[in-house]
Amino acid sequence: MENLEKIRQYLIKETKKKVKDSVTDDILIIQVITHIDDLIKVANVMSKDLREWYGYYNPEFSREIKEHEEFVKLILEKKDKKTKESMGADLSKDELEPIMELAKKINETYKFKKKQEDYLEQIMKKSCPNISTVAGFLIGAKLIKIAGSLRRLAIMPSSTVQLLGAEEALFRHIKNKNSRCPKYGILHSHNLVMKAKKDEQGKAARILAGKISIAAKVDYMKGKFVGDKLLKEVEGKLR
Amino acid sequence: MENLEKIRQYLIKETKKKVKDSVTDDILIIQVITHIDDLIKVANVMSKDLREWYGYYNPEFSREIKEHEEFVKLILEKKDKKTKESMGADLSKDELEPIMELAKKINETYKFKKKQEDYLEQIMKKSCPNISTVAGFLIGAKLIKIAGSLRRLAIMPSSTVQLLGAEEALFRHIKNKNSRCPKYGILHSHNLVMKAKKDEQGKAARILAGKISIAAKVDYMKGKFVGDKLLKEVEGKLR
Repeated sequence: MENLEKIRQYLIKETKKKVKDSVTDDILIIQVITHIDDLIKVANVMSKDLREWYGYYNPEFSREIKEHEEFVKLILEKKDKKTKESMGADLSKDELEPIMELAKKINETYKFKKKQEDYLEQIMKKSCPNISTVAGFLIGAKLIKIAGSLRRLAIMPSSTVQLLGAEEALFRHIKNKNSRCPKYGILHSHNLVMKAKKDEQGKAARILAGKISIAAKVDYMKGKFVGDKLLKEVEGKLR
Repeated sequence: MENLEKIRQYLIKETKKKVKDSVTDDILIIQVITHIDDLIKVANVMSKDLREWYGYYNPEFSREIKEHEEFVKLILEKKDKKTKESMGADLSKDELEPIMELAKKINETYKFKKKQEDYLEQIMKKSCPNISTVAGFLIGAKLIKIAGSLRRLAIMPSSTVQLLGAEEALFRHIKNKNSRCPKYGILHSHNLVMKAKKDEQGKAARILAGKISIAAKVDYMKGKFVGDKLLKEVEGKLR
């Protein structure tokens, strides 16, 4: 009986150790990229509030500047001149203050996001140098997140990598042949795909996905750094 | 023709003035309470990320503390002792830092929310002193928001005020007689309703709604302050 208890304790200890060791770099990467995406959401929610609230004071200005981050910046720099014929209400200084505080808060959130992105870049470069170079650290982290882990990204066919992030459109296509097959998922926001001609974006995504696949395998196996070579090959094929 | 243009200009000017004057205190109140609700959402989103991320390091602690705000506080005060047999991974100082930064950020958001609540209290006490006293400034602002304006809250029957915030349950009841009629909406979180006995909470909400209705009418008409008298009447009836 005493022996049984000893075995039990030993097994618990072993299990705890296994759980402990299961926290690998790619889990942290997925955590941080999720966190960064949430920070963007958070900034958007607050920016919408700001625009509405600020709109009572100077509605014309909010309509002019489409981009949230710039909108906040201009308000904080007091470059939001109110026109003389503005339809906006005249708010007292006391009434404007909490609006400005909100703008400040949003600005801090953007700065914080930048900081966490720097951190992500750092761990990506350390544990996935090849993916980071070919895909960029943000897109790379998103690919790992959608795939589920670095291992799963590494063993995935490159045609799947090409469509990661376009699952919805893909399944719509499979169910209903009338809707077109997507050509890319989040690879769409990659520099090389964006600057390709409209009818060559699919090709660019395909070539890129192939090299990212190789990069993922090398990173997973902790191979040598070949990222710059891979990226040059992509650029060569797209010229 | 020149006259026509003059009239046009005059009308535009008048319209702009009307738009300008249409920003009343209750519009600001609705704006601020919406903003505060969004800050709570924002803090929850970030807290969920924090719990998950921090969980890799010290999973036992996250399960112990249910309340987000307290959880964040304890982490920042380093009262989150890790047990020796913790299943959590050992994170390096570099890996822990961004987690702590996130905790700091969430804490700041809670402080910011408090500040904006103070501001709301101030405008509520100024423009709706009676509602603030009877319902409390937060519940009062929420009632104005759901009603749409102070005017609409003031002309609403008190039975409607009683159910503000329970629209979904109410319409479920109307469509399907099997589901019970709700007894209160957001008045549920009022102190006097909360501390009433379970089978008297409906009665408490009804009495409270009656007096809030009166308070809203007085505030809308800019009458004298009778809030303390009204509140005492509610308390008297509930004894």
